Amino acid sequence: MSSTEGKVIKCKAAVAWEAGKPLVIEEVEVAPPQAMEVRLKILFTSLCHTDVYFWEAKGQTPLFPRIFGHEAAGIVESVGEGVTELKPGDHVLPVFTGECKECRHCKSEESNMCDLLRINTERGVMLSDGKSRFSINGKPIYHFVGTSTFSEYTVVHVGCVAKINPEAPLDKVCVLSCGISTGLGATLNVAKPPKGSTVAIFGLGAVGLAAAEGARIAGASRIIGIDLNPKRFEEAKKFGVTEFVNPKDHDKPVQQVIAEMTDGGVDRSVECTGNFNAMISAFECVHDGWGVAVLVGVPSKDDSFKTHPMNVLNERTLKGTFFGNFKPRTDLPSVVERYMKKELELEKFITHEVTFSEINNAFDLMLSGASLRCIIRMEG
Amino acid sequence: MSSTEGKVIKCKAAVAWEAGKPLVIEEVEVAPPQAMEVRLKILFTSLCHTDVYFWEAKGQTPLFPRIFGHEAAGIVESVGEGVTELKPGDHVLPVFTGECKECRHCKSEESNMCDLLRINTERGVMLSDGKSRFSINGKPIYHFVGTSTFSEYTVVHVGCVAKINPEAPLDKVCVLSCGISTGLGATLNVAKPPKGSTVAIFGLGAVGLAAAEGARIAGASRIIGIDLNPKRFEEAKKFGVTEFVNPKDHDKPVQQVIAEMTDGGVDRSVECTGNFNAMISAFECVHDGWGVAVLVGVPSKDDSFKTHPMNVLNERTLKGTFFGNFKPRTDLPSVVERYMKKELELEKFITHEVTFSEINNAFDLMLSGASLRCIIRMEG
Repeated sequence: MSSTEGKVIKCKAAVAWEAGKPLVIEEVEVAPPQAMEVRLKILFTSLCHTDVYFWEAKGQTPLFPRIFGHEAAGIVESVGEGVTELKPGDHVLPVFTGECKECRHCKSEESNMCDLLRINTERGVMLSDGKSRFSINGKPIYHFVGTSTFSEYTVVHVGCVAKINPEAPLDKVCVLSCGISTGLGATLNVAKPPKGSTVAIFGLGAVGLAAAEGARIAGASRIIGIDLNPKRFEEAKKFGVTEFVNPKDHDKPVQQVIAEMTDGGVDRSVECTGNFNAMISAFECVHDGWGVAVLVGVPSKDDSFKTHPMNVLNERTLKGTFFGNFKPRTDLPSVVERYMKKELELEKFITHEVTFSEINNAFDLMLSGASLRCIIRMEG
Repeated sequence: MSSTEGKVIKCKAAVAWEAGKPLVIEEVEVAPPQAMEVRLKILFTSLCHTDVYFWEAKGQTPLFPRIFGHEAAGIVESVGEGVTELKPGDHVLPVFTGECKECRHCKSEESNMCDLLRINTERGVMLSDGKSRFSINGKPIYHFVGTSTFSEYTVVHVGCVAKINPEAPLDKVCVLSCGISTGLGATLNVAKPPKGSTVAIFGLGAVGLAAAEGARIAGASRIIGIDLNPKRFEEAKKFGVTEFVNPKDHDKPVQQVIAEMTDGGVDRSVECTGNFNAMISAFECVHDGWGVAVLVGVPSKDDSFKTHPMNVLNERTLKGTFFGNFKPRTDLPSVVERYMKKELELEKFITHEVTFSEINNAFDLMLSGASLRCIIRMEG
């Protein structure tokens, strides 16, 4: 039993007081976990676009003060009532979406969109009692997607925690909590390119490069990367991308350019930008008869996906995925194992590292496009 | 060797001289099959909407005089040079689309859209020499989709002929050459509903009812039929349809009505109308996480399939199919066997029968909506 079990823990957290303003490292109080919750000591966290998006709060209802952060790795400090799968000392990845193991989605082999614990970006409190576990001088600080990993300690629903191999280096596998798994799973679990096939990846950020890494692992023989920024191309080679298309270099639609490069279309495509035109191109660039397009990128505005129905009728498939179709608790441990067996390479995604006190630098690096993943080391 | 082998055959054919005008039974000359062709004696043919659509020629380039017909069963009369898979006397189904067994599509396990022999509604001649095998007093009469089964004899590319069990009753299995296989295969080969699942079928004509028959065979527990014509509902019960929705009876979109009936959506949907709004409803009515929508119906005008990308991202799948994804030569024999084993019921699709001289009655029955399938018996 840890000496802190059942007690409030005082620790450091990076609090976002206002939209778009630098985070401030504050001393916060973290309440003990309630029923079906666990309190985690976060050792490493990384920054993902989704944190930045909700921190900027340009589109959504702002919810502040809030503790962001959802890509992380840590160790269980204590568990609440009813928690039997985890115990203090377990090495874990907290995840922004959960797996209750009871609902229709969790019982379906195909879905990971748990009814109880599906991502909820608007909720800033715990599910069980509608309250926050974070406070400063008695004033509650909101949670973010049930994880709030920009804190030395956080409280998470047990359904949002994947127990992993204790030998895995937490400063590497922390990136598997969100973006990298999303891209990797989109290819491996949803697009499922056959060995020797041709795969197009739209968007060569961290998620797209993880999708390319999935294609490389699956044995694709050609991986075509599409991006508007030619600076991405050199780096993408490390992830198995063999050819590059910049839509700006062509007068015709990129789907037509790709069809000409590939004798009628690619076998699989994975769309990681969230841009509507890229979604349409990603669908229309797959070969008729067998092509599968997978949408990963989330659009930031309201618009329609549009295509002529004959593109569908000619035996193309369009699929969407959320978190790479991984069930967080069931599947993430085996993704960590892929890394341990050196099948999956995570080091190349980690371009920067900062200490917790430098967390605002991680935001700057992402906003300038300089980083793929910046690891934030909680202990100085 | 038949006495007619290598010779021109004179026989009766129903010739469409002009768009929309009654067919005329004429004596035509049918040339011997050339290399990789077979000449068939047609015993039974049936009428499909596609014949009527091109006969009306309201949208397409008119090509007349022409011999329509593509759902049929017959016996091989003679074979051209290089044909080794078929011999005189074989029982066969001619098919409007083919399987060369050599191209990328034929070699793919997923596609049936043969590069060489894919349906071509605009070609009125044979592939090898660009000539017709039909003539009247030396004047060529155009073929239709490579089959032209409204003739006692016809010439077809060997790749468009499925050899079937000689014990199968040709007056029943003739309907498997097009519409019934299209609907059946859309469900069994593409939607693949798990046992006990809920399936929505849009459009309860022959193709939609065949899709329902597929759902019944697959063991679906709820089959929801959607049609604007309530007269279709009683008949649909024979095909396993358990519930009915008429979009006209509701103020809200039919996808919402279906979601409310099914706790969030159906497991599978099959769209058999070709109407754009029905396509969108069919996609949006499937459950997130695992739902699969299959488009079968071919649109008659130019418009876009539109949906919000979040409907895709929430793990729905959209697939299109052509001829139910059956490879004509490889797969149709086993569909005939399903009928022989009484797994698949064809009798209920056959609502009418006429003699060859009464062929225009079959058009009237289809245009009035009175028939599902009307068999045309070639021998009086």
